[in-house]
Amino acid sequence: VHGADGWLCYEATCALARSLGMLVIGDVKRGDIGSTAEAYAQAHFAHADALTLHPYLGADSLEPFLRRCRSDQKGVFVLVRTSNPGARDLQDLRVGDGSLAEAVAARVHAWGKDLGEPGSYSPVGAVVGATWPHELAKLRALMPRAWFLLPGVGAQGAKAADVAPAFDARGLGALVNQSRGVLGCFEPDDPAWLDKIHAAATAFADEVRVASRSRS
Amino acid sequence: VHGADGWLCYEATCALARSLGMLVIGDVKRGDIGSTAEAYAQAHFAHADALTLHPYLGADSLEPFLRRCRSDQKGVFVLVRTSNPGARDLQDLRVGDGSLAEAVAARVHAWGKDLGEPGSYSPVGAVVGATWPHELAKLRALMPRAWFLLPGVGAQGAKAADVAPAFDARGLGALVNQSRGVLGCFEPDDPAWLDKIHAAATAFADEVRVASRSRS
Repeated sequence: VHGADGWLCYEATCALARSLGMLVIGDVKRGDIGSTAEAYAQAHFAHADALTLHPYLGADSLEPFLRRCRSDQKGVFVLVRTSNPGARDLQDLRVGDGSLAEAVAARVHAWGKDLGEPGSYSPVGAVVGATWPHELAKLRALMPRAWFLLPGVGAQGAKAADVAPAFDARGLGALVNQSRGVLGCFEPDDPAWLDKIHAAATAFADEVRVASRSRS
Repeated sequence: VHGADGWLCYEATCALARSLGMLVIGDVKRGDIGSTAEAYAQAHFAHADALTLHPYLGADSLEPFLRRCRSDQKGVFVLVRTSNPGARDLQDLRVGDGSLAEAVAARVHAWGKDLGEPGSYSPVGAVVGATWPHELAKLRALMPRAWFLLPGVGAQGAKAADVAPAFDARGLGALVNQSRGVLGCFEPDDPAWLDKIHAAATAFADEVRVASRSRS
């Protein structure tokens, strides 16, 4: 696939999903200085409702995205605790009484403090790997108003049941995604690929539904 | 500009620069889990000799890029101390006896430890903002074998003279880049735009040359 073809494919996929009434989260993991962040926000929010962002450059690198959360009903998910094994290298560093991931979590809460309806979720969410289930309760306490985007179920080894602590008593507050576990059912020579993807997606949605109700 | 057109423009610019014998650094600031990192490394190293990377996801997120440093003469610049004002938000957090930026610097040194010729620079470099001149000596001591890529001169306020401590006694070890200060000379209605860009680039190169010799 040529790079420009990849971009066109991404745009077409986003447009198709939105035409079906879906919200689109662009897992673009951007993090750059203000002027570049402004260009990324403009370009990527044209295709997605929410985007994933790196926190390392701090508040001013997020501001062009947060501005569109205030004015255009957009959302962001800041990388807090990633699903990969190497997450430990930096995110486990001790910062004060906690970890670097917890320090980032406190900032995510602060960045979303004045956004969204009081008493409800803010548009400033967090990426929290489902592969670290024992950390979910602590991170939820630090970010009570953040939507959690939870990758890591499926190919990365986590189970939907692991993420139950990320949901609130109403079964809200967490988005559990799975990519390879569903898309990997596609094989060009298998005429039943669509049925297999449908079955995998349905089974996964059922598992998430059960997890989301576990605290109600 | 349409997104796919932007990609084609990027590719064409990289190809033109390489055809002129230049090394191309893609300031793409990628940082993603292993499988995605592998795809990014494959796609972006097709056009650039070196890439900028986010450290937040840890060693396994860098490995697909480091592998190509070992086998394909590629290079990376890991974000250590960024040039923007918000760099302070996370990078100044206290980690042990130093800052988070210094903790990342120690890892950058470790990641490049076995790469490159002994006694010379490694292909694992660091992005260090020229806007923080008082931190250069400390970061250089933590990363004695890392090429520093120093943004921040020009539009962001730093002077080429500020970055002198990043160079070694031979005038090596640092790449000082300027984008807006040179490219911003272009105005479509000004027939002299090429002369103006040439003058800005030449003046900038002279300033960097003076800075690079200050320790010899």
